[in-house]
Amino acid sequence: MEDNKIQEVKSPSLITTPSGGWGASVHVFAPATVANVVCGFDVLGFAVNEPGDEVIMRMTGKPGITISKITGDDGRLPLDPAKNTVSVSVQHYLQSVGRADVGLDIELHKKMPIGSGLGSSSASTVAGLFAIKTLLGDEADPAKLLPFAMKGEEMACGQGHADNVAPALLGGFVLIRSYEPLDVVRLPHPAGLWCAIVFPDVDVPTREARQIIRKNIQMKDAVTQWGNIAGLVSGLFMQDIDLIGRSMKDVLVEPVRSMLIPDFYKMREMAMGMGAVSFGISGSGPSVFAFTKDEETARLITQKLQQHLTGLKIGSNTYVSTINDAGPRVLG
Amino acid sequence: MEDNKIQEVKSPSLITTPSGGWGASVHVFAPATVANVVCGFDVLGFAVNEPGDEVIMRMTGKPGITISKITGDDGRLPLDPAKNTVSVSVQHYLQSVGRADVGLDIELHKKMPIGSGLGSSSASTVAGLFAIKTLLGDEADPAKLLPFAMKGEEMACGQGHADNVAPALLGGFVLIRSYEPLDVVRLPHPAGLWCAIVFPDVDVPTREARQIIRKNIQMKDAVTQWGNIAGLVSGLFMQDIDLIGRSMKDVLVEPVRSMLIPDFYKMREMAMGMGAVSFGISGSGPSVFAFTKDEETARLITQKLQQHLTGLKIGSNTYVSTINDAGPRVLG
Repeated sequence: MEDNKIQEVKSPSLITTPSGGWGASVHVFAPATVANVVCGFDVLGFAVNEPGDEVIMRMTGKPGITISKITGDDGRLPLDPAKNTVSVSVQHYLQSVGRADVGLDIELHKKMPIGSGLGSSSASTVAGLFAIKTLLGDEADPAKLLPFAMKGEEMACGQGHADNVAPALLGGFVLIRSYEPLDVVRLPHPAGLWCAIVFPDVDVPTREARQIIRKNIQMKDAVTQWGNIAGLVSGLFMQDIDLIGRSMKDVLVEPVRSMLIPDFYKMREMAMGMGAVSFGISGSGPSVFAFTKDEETARLITQKLQQHLTGLKIGSNTYVSTINDAGPRVLG
Repeated sequence: MEDNKIQEVKSPSLITTPSGGWGASVHVFAPATVANVVCGFDVLGFAVNEPGDEVIMRMTGKPGITISKITGDDGRLPLDPAKNTVSVSVQHYLQSVGRADVGLDIELHKKMPIGSGLGSSSASTVAGLFAIKTLLGDEADPAKLLPFAMKGEEMACGQGHADNVAPALLGGFVLIRSYEPLDVVRLPHPAGLWCAIVFPDVDVPTREARQIIRKNIQMKDAVTQWGNIAGLVSGLFMQDIDLIGRSMKDVLVEPVRSMLIPDFYKMREMAMGMGAVSFGISGSGPSVFAFTKDEETARLITQKLQQHLTGLKIGSNTYVSTINDAGPRVLG
């Protein structure tokens, strides 16, 4: 990357009316993401190939944004464009590039569970922003969309975090080095890393999951944590999967948040016993994830953990994926 | 490094009587080190080419260790081998490799100020351990000496820290990912990085400098800190000097320790104004250091800061160096 430092969006390299003219439409996918990555609370995240959300965006002749359809949300998301994170982010973008005259209709197809800890709102928001960027022929670096995506997060979670939207937008592993000014660094990763995700269908709202985290901590625990994040980042650069595994320990957030997840430590014991490189909470939970060195181990882990949750009468969704290096993509 | 994980020393690949036989001697240099590196409190350090300490070690016919001479210490260090960090570390090593029968005499030549925050005791200890390793023809990875060097630190500072001894022993930039078990990772760095060091001759004992650090901190400050250490490690791997500079900020330790250093913030302002990449406290101080992109800037910074301290009637030593990738070396 030539410029990792994203502080302010001044003049995206817009903007011509697309070749399709008014009425043109685009269908975009954006990926789910795993934030925190065990030892990188609030500063690390990565994208996966599945699940993800889809947006179909159509240009209309009439200024303003409408949301004509939302599927897969069990009626939980608002159709009001002033209250939906997708339309709010897109609106901020349009204002910033001086195109408040543009009229848009949005269909949002949720292909992943809401409140899962997999960056559900981020995936939708990024899909929407990538759709409008594509429709307007904006050639600017996708990273320039980040501040708009964070506006959506602010609405969804009460705080403008970037550890889901940044990897959803940029793909791969992303470090948010600093929020003020915003400074985002894309990190490499070993090619052979697989990710097993299990979403136990219990309710852990993001806001509440944040509130239970301790505001005051011991320096010695913080030292342990930053030794580990430094080790994880080193392992990513060195393609050293064992170092990645040794470093993925969390003495600060996991001990508290794991209480909200059914049989968290039992699931970890099972996953590690089956050969996982590491195991932890995705974002604020309740989804959990494991890194593995191959697809077979990842599939075995999701299968066995799902069986275990079924035994507890808890439904679950499972996903097996490599890391998604591309971020959002146009489906049609 | 093939094996970054150093947990236990079981059987160094010893040990023949050296070709020189009893009476053989060796003269070893080991480098000064900058621990913490601003945002990596207790887990990061690097070695410089100067200053450093020297040990001359001679094999005697009679079991046991003697210290016949110490120079450059103004009489502050004990000649009693049971109380000197060099002999204590060497003694631990000899016991571990089953060679308590070996007789040694040690001369320690301090070529750097004691209590400077530049890893003075570590340099001496590492020089001693590298000397005995050389005399005994021990071909084991130098990293295997680390636990013995930490015994010396435990005696010198009250705690067995590794952020000075590890870079003194291994050279370059070193991350201590974990202490239990000990897990040390050698990090790369940009070739063109220069280090300017200024030691203001005021007294800041390591023990006291540790005691003033807060034991309880805010989570939000810890998040800032681990975003920065992750950024610094990324910058080292990416050879991105600007990212290294942006990441070298410390919101937790520097605000407290800087109070013990005369005109710390004024010196920082001066160094940054002259083009430093970053500026901070070396170890527990009072030495300060700056990274620069060239030798000329480093020399200018040391000169101007020394002048400033002279104006405050404070004597100082200054050093300009690239990063020392070799660690200790045999001088003769």
